[in-house]
Amino acid sequence: MTNRVILAYSGGLDTTVAIPYLKDMTDGEVVAVSIDVGQGGEDMESVRQRALDAGAVEAVVVDAKDEFAEEYCLPTIKANGLYMKQYPLVSALSRPLIVKHMTEAAKEFGGTHVAHGCTGKGNDQVRFEVGFANTAPDLKIIAPARDFAWTRDKAIAFAEEKGLPIEQSKSSPFSIDQNLFGRAIETGYLEDLWNAPTKDVYSYTEDPTLNFNSPDEVIISFEDGKPTAIDGKPVSVLEAIEEMNRRAGAQGIGRLDMVEDRLVGIKSREIYEAPGAIAIMIAHAALEDVTVERELARYKRQVEGKWAELVYDGLWFSPLKRALDTFIEESQKGVSGDIRMVMHAGNCNVNGRRSNTSLYDFNLATYDEGDTFDQTLARGFVELHGLSSKMAAKRDFNL
Amino acid sequence: MTNRVILAYSGGLDTTVAIPYLKDMTDGEVVAVSIDVGQGGEDMESVRQRALDAGAVEAVVVDAKDEFAEEYCLPTIKANGLYMKQYPLVSALSRPLIVKHMTEAAKEFGGTHVAHGCTGKGNDQVRFEVGFANTAPDLKIIAPARDFAWTRDKAIAFAEEKGLPIEQSKSSPFSIDQNLFGRAIETGYLEDLWNAPTKDVYSYTEDPTLNFNSPDEVIISFEDGKPTAIDGKPVSVLEAIEEMNRRAGAQGIGRLDMVEDRLVGIKSREIYEAPGAIAIMIAHAALEDVTVERELARYKRQVEGKWAELVYDGLWFSPLKRALDTFIEESQKGVSGDIRMVMHAGNCNVNGRRSNTSLYDFNLATYDEGDTFDQTLARGFVELHGLSSKMAAKRDFNL
Amino acid sequence: MTNRVILAYSGGLDTTVAIPYLKDMTDGEVVAVSIDVGQGGEDMESVRQRALDAGAVEAVVVDAKDEFAEEYCLPTIKANGLYMKQYPLVSALSRPLIVKHMTEAAKEFGGTHVAHGCTGKGNDQVRFEVGFANTAPDLKIIAPARDFAWTRDKAIAFAEEKGLPIEQSKSSPFSIDQNLFGRAIETGYLEDLWNAPTKDVYSYTEDPTLNFNSPDEVIISFEDGKPTAIDGKPVSVLEAIEEMNRRAGAQGIGRLDMVEDRLVGIKSREIYEAPGAIAIMIAHAALEDVTVERELARYKRQVEGKWAELVYDGLWFSPLKRALDTFIEESQKGVSGDIRMVMHAGNCNVNGRRSNTSLYDFNLATYDEGDTFDQTLARGFVELHGLSSKMAAKRDFNL
Amino acid sequence: MTNRVILAYSGGLDTTVAIPYLKDMTDGEVVAVSIDVGQGGEDMESVRQRALDAGAVEAVVVDAKDEFAEEYCLPTIKANGLYMKQYPLVSALSRPLIVKHMTEAAKEFGGTHVAHGCTGKGNDQVRFEVGFANTAPDLKIIAPARDFAWTRDKAIAFAEEKGLPIEQSKSSPFSIDQNLFGRAIETGYLEDLWNAPTKDVYSYTEDPTLNFNSPDEVIISFEDGKPTAIDGKPVSVLEAIEEMNRRAGAQGIGRLDMVEDRLVGIKSREIYEAPGAIAIMIAHAALEDVTVERELARYKRQVEGKWAELVYDGLWFSPLKRALDTFIEESQKGVSGDIRMVMHAGNCNVNGRRSNTSLYDFNLATYDEGDTFDQTLARGFVELHGLSSKMAAKRDFNL
Repeated sequence: MTNRVILAYSGGLDTTVAIPYLKDMTDGEVVAVSIDVGQGGEDMESVRQRALDAGAVEAVVVDAKDEFAEEYCLPTIKANGLYMKQYPLVSALSRPLIVKHMTEAAKEFGGTHVAHGCTGKGNDQVRFEVGFANTAPDLKIIAPARDFAWTRDKAIAFAEEKGLPIEQSKSSPFSIDQNLFGRAIETGYLEDLWNAPTKDVYSYTEDPTLNFNSPDEVIISFEDGKPTAIDGKPVSVLEAIEEMNRRAGAQGIGRLDMVEDRLVGIKSREIYEAPGAIAIMIAHAALEDVTVERELARYKRQVEGKWAELVYDGLWFSPLKRALDTFIEESQKGVSGDIRMVMHAGNCNVNGRRSNTSLYDFNLATYDEGDTFDQTLARGFVELHGLSSKMAAKRDFNL
Repeated sequence: MTNRVILAYSGGLDTTVAIPYLKDMTDGEVVAVSIDVGQGGEDMESVRQRALDAGAVEAVVVDAKDEFAEEYCLPTIKANGLYMKQYPLVSALSRPLIVKHMTEAAKEFGGTHVAHGCTGKGNDQVRFEVGFANTAPDLKIIAPARDFAWTRDKAIAFAEEKGLPIEQSKSSPFSIDQNLFGRAIETGYLEDLWNAPTKDVYSYTEDPTLNFNSPDEVIISFEDGKPTAIDGKPVSVLEAIEEMNRRAGAQGIGRLDMVEDRLVGIKSREIYEAPGAIAIMIAHAALEDVTVERELARYKRQVEGKWAELVYDGLWFSPLKRALDTFIEESQKGVSGDIRMVMHAGNCNVNGRRSNTSLYDFNLATYDEGDTFDQTLARGFVELHGLSSKMAAKRDFNL
Repeated sequence: MTNRVILAYSGGLDTTVAIPYLKDMTDGEVVAVSIDVGQGGEDMESVRQRALDAGAVEAVVVDAKDEFAEEYCLPTIKANGLYMKQYPLVSALSRPLIVKHMTEAAKEFGGTHVAHGCTGKGNDQVRFEVGFANTAPDLKIIAPARDFAWTRDKAIAFAEEKGLPIEQSKSSPFSIDQNLFGRAIETGYLEDLWNAPTKDVYSYTEDPTLNFNSPDEVIISFEDGKPTAIDGKPVSVLEAIEEMNRRAGAQGIGRLDMVEDRLVGIKSREIYEAPGAIAIMIAHAALEDVTVERELARYKRQVEGKWAELVYDGLWFSPLKRALDTFIEESQKGVSGDIRMVMHAGNCNVNGRRSNTSLYDFNLATYDEGDTFDQTLARGFVELHGLSSKMAAKRDFNL
Repeated sequence: MTNRVILAYSGGLDTTVAIPYLKDMTDGEVVAVSIDVGQGGEDMESVRQRALDAGAVEAVVVDAKDEFAEEYCLPTIKANGLYMKQYPLVSALSRPLIVKHMTEAAKEFGGTHVAHGCTGKGNDQVRFEVGFANTAPDLKIIAPARDFAWTRDKAIAFAEEKGLPIEQSKSSPFSIDQNLFGRAIETGYLEDLWNAPTKDVYSYTEDPTLNFNSPDEVIISFEDGKPTAIDGKPVSVLEAIEEMNRRAGAQGIGRLDMVEDRLVGIKSREIYEAPGAIAIMIAHAALEDVTVERELARYKRQVEGKWAELVYDGLWFSPLKRALDTFIEESQKGVSGDIRMVMHAGNCNVNGRRSNTSLYDFNLATYDEGDTFDQTLARGFVELHGLSSKMAAKRDFNL
């Protein structure tokens, strides 16, 4: 059987040179797969052509933006999925989607291997490889950067040796991964944790320390946890994210500077921008506060933390992740209504909510006329609520 | 035995009139206890005199600001104690402190009853009464507002009937509770969840939608989770909170507008301001990200949620709260170092951290020269990390 | 509108006398509802006739054994639902079922009130009343034993006064609640925790300290968590429980003597017998060990504890319980196969399991021929698995 | 510097032959370290002499039985530490103790390497190596069985080649690890999960399917969670375990047949015997039911599961394990008193408990004379306990 390597192809120098390299290495053929998850940059047809020029036997290009929004970003919104309470899982979300499409390409084109460009100290190698273990366990995995110390310098040397017509762009000081849900930046000088990010790090967001002309008030509507309209205009999830990336980004919302716990056991400094994700998730959480019952809400907060850790840790397809998904889906029934927020200078503040499925009851809550809460019930409640603790206190404090 | 009522005394009209009322009601005496937890307002000596004038047999005034900061606010900082991930427990923290001092007063002055002014639909009745159940289970509790529908109008009528020399201030539309850790505001028109707060609601914070002249950069230093210096100047916890209230408040930081789940089962709309609490807790959490080991950090996030719920629910003295305290205290060993933040227009953004007890290892994290991470280890890790999920996928997806 | 009380009617003296009592009290009519959940005793038609004789305007009898087994016991089996790790929730399961049928009767017969016989210090009042709050929040609830101190003695006096033809059985020293999933016994002398239960307490189980002739080997088969066959013979869930009640009971399996934490805040001593429930749940859990992936299994153990607490606490219909149900249901996919157990003298020991959906892989597990586990992967795994802890140890232990 | 290998030395053939093998391999010296954790077998002095005869430059023998009982078994008792709710962590407990003593030997004798005999598919390699990473991160680790495929056959061939005077015992079909807390057995035919264990597998316990003459009633006393007396006779923890191993073992208590989730991702079949551990832990848990407050008890059950997983996973020295230890230690205050159990034919049934620190209150619990529970409190409690769920039901069920 001919070796056929399904390569996650970005169009950049490293993966372009990887095409002849993988052909040599496996004595086989390479199928380049490029997925549009909203990363921007050049058009996908150019990317496809470059792969073929570099020797790929097939080059597949997939516009997966809608799928990414509906199947990966939306569950994250419903889960309030923030790793370490902060990071909306941007890169961790795109990897399982890419895995899925590479697996499909492997079936279509008779792939025997899959190849990715990740190093051995990051999270993405795990997300790719555990992903393949869960979708195509028989495919062999090639990770040149990790297993063969394949670096940019080696790629250039290899290209020159082979006489490949590559264009050497100026080496960027930034290592960037971006998609429609956000943007991740690592760069050398930030490895000193005391250094602040410089302005050129950012691209999706304005500088929140500038003076802004006026706040931007927005109303986001949800149905069962899904964003369905912005300022009354119906939107798809993709449109909601794109629109909020634009508007929240313009107000400097969604920047993160954090030290995070990688799955491989080390801590690393990361800069993120995720204006749309953060703005939508703030609105979603505020709507949950109005529409989700207290005990469910309390438990869901624990589930959310675990869900985010699993996704971060590359376990998107795992049985536990799937079981938590059913819990979260059930919790979203009734998370419907409108959230009004004021966005300004890096802030995104909720100041109004309305919902037909609200659990807020004016007549129970009000201290004014119309009060229906029977206060005489409270005495018994308080007494029994505290009884077990009271018994313990009598013993422990000798009362 | 003479009835002696230990009254939580604020100095306001309601509790002043409550003094003769409670004397009548119990055919006994009243001891007024007033605790300074940084709520501001008139000086405590005037408060004390007013209680005596109104007929209290004793009037006790306690400056508990330092105790409140060290024994109640600091554990909250260490716990990242935010109810529903947002609210730093402002009122929930002062109640157990007040209970403790009222219990001490009861011992000193031979109290037989304790009295508080809470209604039957809020959380504070629970915090008071479960508190007393845990510190002085034999004292009888009187809650006139709840159990005898004692209202402001009744208080005024009673005062007039008794010829008490009260001064009727203009009735405020706001119901406010404040202390050095923050400020809580409820008011009638906000009971419509779609209404936005008006500017006059706020007192601790500037309006973040104004234009601010310049960002305020601050460095907060911690030792084992405790804030110990600001911009290099040593501070007590009380000083840290006061200083950050001032500086973060001036930048519009720490406003909250939320719908929260009360212990009595209803949802209610609350406005909070807690500039110092929020700013210090952001810094503290960022330092934990650098100094707390991953698995401990992941578990602590769940503990934090539970801790905040217990404190919110009035269980400050409960056995579970005390056991979680030991966990949290242990977790804070090594949470030492400096966090640099930029405060501006409602934002409080960490952009630098340094620590002698950091778990960040440049040589493991860097992609540049000096890298000591052995990438060949990753392959085995990834494979076994994903093995159990892979086995399940083979079965569940028929692979 | 005529008052109509829907009464949970057992057929015993107390609830029989309650019929005229409730008519008097409400100046209305009484509809008696009796549910067969496998509690045994007299036939339901006699029960029905007695209610009518005592003055009920309608008397409804429902054979709900199958429904109870499928809709209440089966979820408990899937959840390994043991309160305090021990008690299979026997009484807590029947209450929501009774509530459901009483609610239906209220709809059919125009009920305005519901009545139950529970006291104010047990759990069942909560299960009934929270149940009604969740199925028929507008019905008024009457709890004579709790709210009007309606006791057996008062019932007898009332019957004599009214000249009701009651038959005074000898007062039993035991308070018993039983159904097909088990039997709960409370009795005065066991309120001294040092007293051991006497033999006459038990009815579903043989004395396990006797000598038994021979062990009973049984094979229970499951499909997706549901028991479907015993020793190869297909069974309904009801049949599975009945058959295992008989066989496990004959071997003295399923007795519990525990001190339990009631919802109202007190600890109480309880004796339970649940031979079928315990035997089936042991088999079910053993099959999960073979068929549920590790991380899902670890998390499910926490969910199980919460699920059992919610059901014990009367929150069967609550949003959190319903969301946990979806998690548990998802977890049961693939919990299919056979478990072989030896039952003898109070023991129920699993000694064999086979499953087509097993996640056990002989070739990975074996140390003999056929081993396919690649041991070289372990080194990398071990190193990275321990890396974050190692970094912390270096700091904390000055290594 | 001379290479010096600190070898975990059992005295058996494999580790005896490993001594010259490791000398060859490292061109250095070997220090044999043998720890008595109650595994029985030959006396430690013979073991020591054999190591020296085989060429060890030093041979250290440590009687660590008391230390093992106090520092490793006791925390497990307090934690009710059962992996997968069943397995009392027998082998997982001895590994960190051995690591600790090997680390001390390395310091004393200038060790540069440590060596253990574990394979690459079990848990013990992880426990050893993560242990060393946490106590002596600079030592190099040699695992011949895993990294050099060092097998029994190779050991024998090597011994013959080197002319070592070894005694070839008959190869046992069982792979056994045992200590005073229990015994673990793996063997080829049990790798078929449908096969039942044969009688010769067991050594610590009698066959529970035999007929036993008479039940053995025992009273175990605890102070703050620690077993301190048996039938009134004061005991150390070591003595408690040894005594209960004898008595519970004689009644056939403590056998386990389970399929367990290994850390390396596979499921494996394991047989355990732990009569003393199981009997003491049953008593301990029953005493907790009487002495630990409800909410603390509920939370502790989750902590227990996590604690057991961490210990099983080799993370004894990890920061999270240490923080959970403080929680558990705090929870044990007041876990004092006597538990009476009847042991018979594999059963260990609690039937009496008494404690001066009990939270059981007869006067609150009793339905007889002396009842002090105020039942009128219940109505308010029930109503507010169920209120949030009621609001949700109204919405979700259209009530």
